[in-house]
Order: sequence, then C-alpha cells, then structure tokens
Amino acid sequence: MLYAGTGPTTDASMVRVITDRPDDSLQLLKERLATISDLYSAASVLAWDRQTYMPEGGVVGRAEQLATLARLAHEMLVSPETPELLEHAGEREPGSDEAALLRLARREHRRASRLPARLVAEISRATALAEPAWIHARESSDWSLFAPHMERVLALKREEASLLDGEHPYDAMLDRYDPGASTQRLRGMFSALKAGIVPLVRDVSARLGEDRTALLRGAFDEATQEAFGRDVISSFGYDWSRGRQDRAVHPFCIDFGGPGDVRITTRFDPGLLSVGLFATCHEAGHALYEQGVDPSYSHTPLAGGVSMGVHESQSRLWENLVARSRPFWSYFYPRLRGAFSSVSGDVETFYKAVNAVKPSEIRTEADELTYDLHVLLRFELEVDLFEDGLAVADLPEAWNAKMKEYLGIVPKNDALGVLQDTHWAIGYFGYFPSYTVGNVLSVQLYEAAVEERPEILPEMERGEFGTLLGWLRENVHRHGKKYEPDDLIERATGRPPDTAPYLRYLESKFGELYTIRDK
Amino acid sequence: MLYAGTGPTTDASMVRVITDRPDDSLQLLKERLATISDLYSAASVLAWDRQTYMPEGGVVGRAEQLATLARLAHEMLVSPETPELLEHAGEREPGSDEAALLRLARREHRRASRLPARLVAEISRATALAEPAWIHARESSDWSLFAPHMERVLALKREEASLLDGEHPYDAMLDRYDPGASTQRLRGMFSALKAGIVPLVRDVSARLGEDRTALLRGAFDEATQEAFGRDVISSFGYDWSRGRQDRAVHPFCIDFGGPGDVRITTRFDPGLLSVGLFATCHEAGHALYEQGVDPSYSHTPLAGGVSMGVHESQSRLWENLVARSRPFWSYFYPRLRGAFSSVSGDVETFYKAVNAVKPSEIRTEADELTYDLHVLLRFELEVDLFEDGLAVADLPEAWNAKMKEYLGIVPKNDALGVLQDTHWAIGYFGYFPSYTVGNVLSVQLYEAAVEERPEILPEMERGEFGTLLGWLRENVHRHGKKYEPDDLIERATGRPPDTAPYLRYLESKFGELYTIRDK
Repeated sequence: MLYAGTGPTTDASMVRVITDRPDDSLQLLKERLATISDLYSAASVLAWDRQTYMPEGGVVGRAEQLATLARLAHEMLVSPETPELLEHAGEREPGSDEAALLRLARREHRRASRLPARLVAEISRATALAEPAWIHARESSDWSLFAPHMERVLALKREEASLLDGEHPYDAMLDRYDPGASTQRLRGMFSALKAGIVPLVRDVSARLGEDRTALLRGAFDEATQEAFGRDVISSFGYDWSRGRQDRAVHPFCIDFGGPGDVRITTRFDPGLLSVGLFATCHEAGHALYEQGVDPSYSHTPLAGGVSMGVHESQSRLWENLVARSRPFWSYFYPRLRGAFSSVSGDVETFYKAVNAVKPSEIRTEADELTYDLHVLLRFELEVDLFEDGLAVADLPEAWNAKMKEYLGIVPKNDALGVLQDTHWAIGYFGYFPSYTVGNVLSVQLYEAAVEERPEILPEMERGEFGTLLGWLRENVHRHGKKYEPDDLIERATGRPPDTAPYLRYLESKFGELYTIRDK
Repeated sequence: MLYAGTGPTTDASMVRVITDRPDDSLQLLKERLATISDLYSAASVLAWDRQTYMPEGGVVGRAEQLATLARLAHEMLVSPETPELLEHAGEREPGSDEAALLRLARREHRRASRLPARLVAEISRATALAEPAWIHARESSDWSLFAPHMERVLALKREEASLLDGEHPYDAMLDRYDPGASTQRLRGMFSALKAGIVPLVRDVSARLGEDRTALLRGAFDEATQEAFGRDVISSFGYDWSRGRQDRAVHPFCIDFGGPGDVRITTRFDPGLLSVGLFATCHEAGHALYEQGVDPSYSHTPLAGGVSMGVHESQSRLWENLVARSRPFWSYFYPRLRGAFSSVSGDVETFYKAVNAVKPSEIRTEADELTYDLHVLLRFELEVDLFEDGLAVADLPEAWNAKMKEYLGIVPKNDALGVLQDTHWAIGYFGYFPSYTVGNVLSVQLYEAAVEERPEILPEMERGEFGTLLGWLRENVHRHGKKYEPDDLIERATGRPPDTAPYLRYLESKFGELYTIRDK
C-alpha cells in the first residue's frame, strides 16, 4: 500500500516523478482524500459522543480534539501536494464517477484554500464550546448564557464568508449546504411560497374551530414510544445492523463516511405523542438516504447526501408524505392503539390530529402548513446578521417581532423562541433554508415516485414501503454526491426543481382537511 | 496561537530561526505533542464507541479511521521537525515537569522512529478487525473464528518487537506497558511468587471443604447490581461529572488525554453477584488514578498513569484490599442485603464467600490466591509465542495443559479458556504481567498508606474513603508519568518494589481464612 502524499512525511519529489501518469496521481489523490475523510469521520464520532453520552467534564478536552482534527484535515486539503495531484490527475470521461470525484475535490480544495487553518480550528473549537452552553441556556431559558458564544461563532463565520465567493455575504453560507443556492434564488423561492401559504393559513385559521390535537396529549411511556417508533422505521427499511438510535436534546442523524454506520437520535415528550414519533421518522428519512449511498463511494468526496436540501427532502418525505398520510395510519393506527390504550377515537380523527394546523412556537413541532414560515423567519434573520443589519444583542427581540408578524404569536420565553434550535451554536448558518428546499423537493420526488410506481399507496396501507424505498434508492440515494442537486432532481423527476407541486399539495391537503373548497 | 510545527504546512525554516531560543522550541514541541495527544484521544473515543455502542456495520470503516489516526500520530512523532525541536529544547532542571516531559518525549520519539508508519497503521487496522472477530469467536466458543486474526496480529507485533530494543524479543512488548520491565526480571518475580503461592494453594486446597460461594449465587436484577456498584464507587470518590459507566463484553477503563472524562465499563452476571461488583470496583480503581492526575499534564506525555503495573496496583487495591476486606463489608453488607433481599447469612459468612479460594477457569473472576497463576500461564505462553517455540495453532492445547498443571482444571471449552481475554485481539501482548506487578505493588502501597494514616481503617468501617484516596492522590495519582515507576513506588513507600509484603499478605489473609495456622 502507498502512504505517500498523506502526511508530513510526504516526499514531494514522488509526486513530480509521476507527472505523466495520471492514474497514479488519481490513486494518490484518492488516498489523500480517504485520509481527510477519515479525519472528518473521526470528528463525527466525537461529535456524536458529545451530544449523547459525554460527561460535562469532557467539554474542554473534546473541543481541543475536534479543533485538532478539523485543522489537520484542512491542512492536508490545502497542502501543496493536493493541487499538484488534482492537476496531474487530468480530466476523466464526463459522467464517470471519477470525473465527479475530481469536480468535487477541486471545489473542496478551492473553498478550503481560501481559509486559514487557524480559522478552521477556531470555528471547530468555538462551536464545540458553544453547543453545551446552548444546552444550558435553553434549559434555563437564559439568552445571556448563550449570547457571548453566539457573538464568537457568528464573528468567525462572517470572517469565513468574507474569504469566500458570493455576490451576497450570506451566499457562502448557503453554498456550503446547498451547492448552487444563493440569497437571490432563495428570496425568489420564499416569495412564491409566501404568496401561496400566507392566504392559505389565513383561510385555514378562519376555520380552525376546536383543538384537534387532544388525541395526541396525555401520558405516554417513553419506552413504549421508543418501541413504536422503532417498529415504524424498521418497516420503512432502516437497517439496525448499520445504525442505532439514542437520545439527544436536539434530534439529529449522523454518518461516519459511509453507509455502514448511520445513527439517529430522538427526543421524546412524555406528554405529547407527536414529538418523538415524527422526529424519529424525520431522522430515519435522513438515515435511509445515507444507508442507501453506493458503498464504493465510502471515504471519497462522493460519499453521503448531495446537499442539505435533498437530504431534507428525504427526511420530510418520510415524516410528512408518508407518516402524516391516510394510508400510513390506516395500517399503523390500530397498532398505535394497541401500544397506548389511552388513545381513542377513529382513524380519521387521528389523521386530523396529526395534521392539525396551529401556529406555534417550535419549528420542529410545527404543522406542515406553518412550518415554512418558521424557516422564512430564520432565513431573514440570518441574512440580516450577515448583512450587518442586525446585532446579536437584538436577536431575541427581532425573533419575537417576526413570530408575531408571520404566525401571530410571541414565544412565552426564549427557550421556546430564539434558543430553540442548535444550528447557530454549531455554526450552521445557511442550513435552515434547506428545510424548505427539502419540503419543496419532497413533494416533487414523491409524486414522481407514485406516478411511476402507483402500487406504493396500496403497499403503504399494508405497512410496506419496499417499492417507495426502492425508487428512492435507485433515483436518489445510491448516487451520493455524484450529480449536482438540480441535475439529480431533473434526472429523478424529469423536471428542474419547482415550487408549484408543493403549493398544489398544500392547497389540496389542507383545503380538504379544513373544507376550504371541495376536493 | 501558534500552529506551526504541527502538520504538513509546517514551515521548516521557522524551526531553524529559533535555534537559539530553547523556550520557543519547547513551546512548539508542546504544541506538536498536544496535537499527537489529541489524535490518540480521538482514537480512544472511537475505540470506546466500538466496544460499547457501534453497530456491526461500522466495523470496517472504524478500522480504517483508527488506522488513519494511528498513522498520522506516528508520522507527526517521527517527522524531522520532532527531533529538531527535541534537540533545541535543551536540558531542563532535573526533577522539573519539563525535564520529565522531555525525557518521555525523547523516549517516545526513539521508539516510534524505529517503526514504519505502514506497520503502525497495519497494527491498528488488524486489531480493530480482530476485536469484533474475537467477540464472535468467544460467543460461539470457536477458536477457528479467531485464529487467523491472532496469526495476523501476532505476526505484526513480532515484527514490531524485532525493530525495537531488548535482550529478549518479548522485552519490547513489556517495556511498552511497564517501562523498565524485562523478561528476565519478571521471571524472577514469578519464580518468587510461585515458590510462595503454590504451597499456599496446596495447603488451602486441603482444607477447602464445602463451597463457600453459595451466597453469591442466585438471581440478581442487573439494574439493582448496577445501582449498588454505583453507590460503592461513588463512596470511593469516582466523579460522575468526569466519567460514566457503560456495558461492555470485557470491562475496561478509558481516558481521553486528561482527567476530565474517564469512563469505565462493566459486565454483569445475573446469576453471580461477584462478577459485576468486583469488575466495577476494579475499573473504578483505574479511573480514580486517571481522574487524579494533575490537570496541567493534560495533552502532554505526562498525562495518565505511569505504567500498567502501577495502574493495576490501583485497580487491584480498590478491588481486593478495599472491596474484599472486613471493614468494607461491615459497612456495605447491610446495604447489600437491603438491595437484594435474597442475600442472607452474617457478614463473616459473606466475607468468606467473597474470599473463597477455588481454582477456576476465568482470570477476571479468580480469587486473590489463584489469580497470579492465571497470569503466570499467560506470561509463559506469550514468552513462548515470541521465542518462536509455540505456534498459534497449538495455543488452545498449550493453554489447557498449563491450566491443568497450575490450577488442576481443564476449561470446559475455549470460551472459558484461551478465548476469555480481549488482550491478544487488541494487540496487548506484554500486558498480562502488569496484573501481577499490580498485585505486588497494591499491597506495598496500601500498607504504606495505612501505616502513615491509620484512620483509613476506621473510616472504611463508616463507608468513607477520603483519607485513603487522598493519600493515593498525593503519593501516586497526581504525578502522572512524571517519575519512573520504580522511583514513584520508592517515593511513596520508602522502598523499591518488593514481592515480600504481597506474599506475607496472602499468607496471613488466607492462612486465617482457611485456618492453616493461628493468626
């Protein structure tokens, strides 16, 4: 085995010797990229542990370990051997895995080479310290405990943005999660959605009537909730020999460089059945994507989901289009009643409960119709933070003002408001819009799947999901990062990304649920 | 902060600029060593996860990640900058922390520079694959599932030994765990112990009479066992805000480069109370040592216990001298009866039960008197394996023959014999003798502590351990790796390591328990 080109003992002359042998350069490049991938994967294991089992005393040491791993990966990516190998590897047949690998490696290198190792390590360290501070701040609903960390993380991320390309300072943040996304393009998307959703919410609100969610409230044993959730996602096809489920303050899905170990975490509310169940389905949707990527892409830049928008399309598809649908509950509702004897009422009442519209404080617990307004709010605040139009100190007030404007409510406290999400603590500015991109794409993909394989619906009524998962595996999952997101969607659905099917779906589903118009 | 000197972007000229400034060289050296320490710590987190929570599908990817981390740490240790910095850092005041740091860093560098990065990565990868294979082999008691891995790991470790110093090929293995140990010195120690223990076992065996362990057998709820164990080690002083306890096939203690996060694992037997309890006390003994090291040593070569012999002295001290003693049980036995209503009999009967001598198959469950014979057997087999006098294929037979010779029994199957320990799977050849070194040192240290602070015994009768832990912290724990093991023991006890106190202790304790002679 060759180990040259992967560390400080690199013999630079070796790279030069093989100038005329692009295949050797590609092989050396792949080994270097595998090392970088392993460092990222190790960091992911450390991050998983930090958010699940690490004791309090580990915080400072863990931050140092993560900073070191981030710095070493970055140094290896930007070291002089990398561009040399990238150049000597030449061009590959368009459409081949190797052409895609080179395209992605060149993009990663271009991006990383703009950022000093110091900044990369500082961001890693600052977020590793901010995340536990955010947990404490949220527990005690005390913004002041988190504000200094937010200042620090934001300053570092703004420094990062200033070093990267983009017409708008926020573009570099978006591009990290959704290659090709831009502030301008997202403004267009949100504007179209706002025009469709806001009147719909108004129409629905006029017909809200009594609270439909009573069925979901009560006392629900957590172990039973967990077992029911496990049954559901097992039937989806989540492979437990290649994953596991743990508890975390903020549910997440994580992989370690390949489909062999893809874990999810969940949070349960003993008084509200929907929280744990839909979080489980959501994270399982992410995990099914990662478990379905071509194993030969492991430890390469092709591994993993192509963008956060496409990733969220998978999580939201299983959470909403599957687990909030009539065919799903026609099978699972009798089972749910078997698990929780206190749940009563017919399946249609339960279907209405899990689809009840009610403007509320917490994004992750929002109904489908108001969900995107939560995202819109975050998108606008992040743009303001990066445009320098908003100070961190003014965030809680700005948050509450937008909640009032879009959803008509003001959070009772900051834990239910500006402190609810983990994203800013871990430096994930630019991530939130992916949720709405994901909603849009989830409907486009799901409709294409059902059109091609209509048996998906009757299968779902039998608690079977093999055809749906198979279609997603074939058209989305297995490709990993090979195609650009827009390209992947067009290959899968025959059309570029489009908000129209999503708006039609919302109008149809909630129009019927709230009898705004005849079906 | 300075990041030079720690990775592939190192500017070698920077090192040269500071030739005449030893303090800068020392600072750069410390940063480089901190990076190496962080890589080892990250690898430890990955190893902990592999042995506690990792799903089966993660095996191959995890092996690659661990190999990468091991290779990078090794490359950084042996890269040309390291000896340059070591040289420029000059000499420091004898007895200072910095002098010790340089001594240890030079030793580590000398050792590592003999080993090619390829071999280091291969050992890491081979052991990461062998460990899960060992678990399967043990579960099905099928040596053939493990034998090829044992062949591979042994071949790599023998290659390692051939590249390192030592009069005997096994010396390099010993030196890794107990600096200063040698095959010759250990032969002397085991010879003295054999001469004392074998006749004692013979005398005791003649008086064995009825089985004294009936009290420990029954049905014991695992959660209750765990809770009782937690109470015991909390009273020892184990700090849960800087650690946690999980389940593992083979109990272990692990740290991540400092005293802030020191975890233990335990295995419970629902039918035998002693297994989980003494494993918990044993691992807590290790953890108390690591939690007690001077925090300023974190991320440096001074961090952590000085040798496995001294480490085992701490685990065996808490397991045997404390948790198998009369004063301990005079406090905890009423509590144990409160937790398990099925446990009956007086405290003296219980004391006899936890100290019952009975030659048996499993080392970790052996009584104090026969324990060292298990270690002797492993020591002799390992010496033979490294001397080329024993083939892996012949190991099960050789194991059983020595069991028959030293303990008078032949294991019912390989799971209870040659497959019982994890050590060979993870490449820990040379570790086993540390258990007996630890037994010897545990008595020497404990007697010194009680001589200096006689209140330790009455405190123990009240379930208090502060004075004992305080003495160990002051005389052993806080020093980390600052002193050589022999030096540390002489500073703590006023005498060099000596087998005599240990033999006197065994003769006195088991002489009284089995009325071989008057007290």
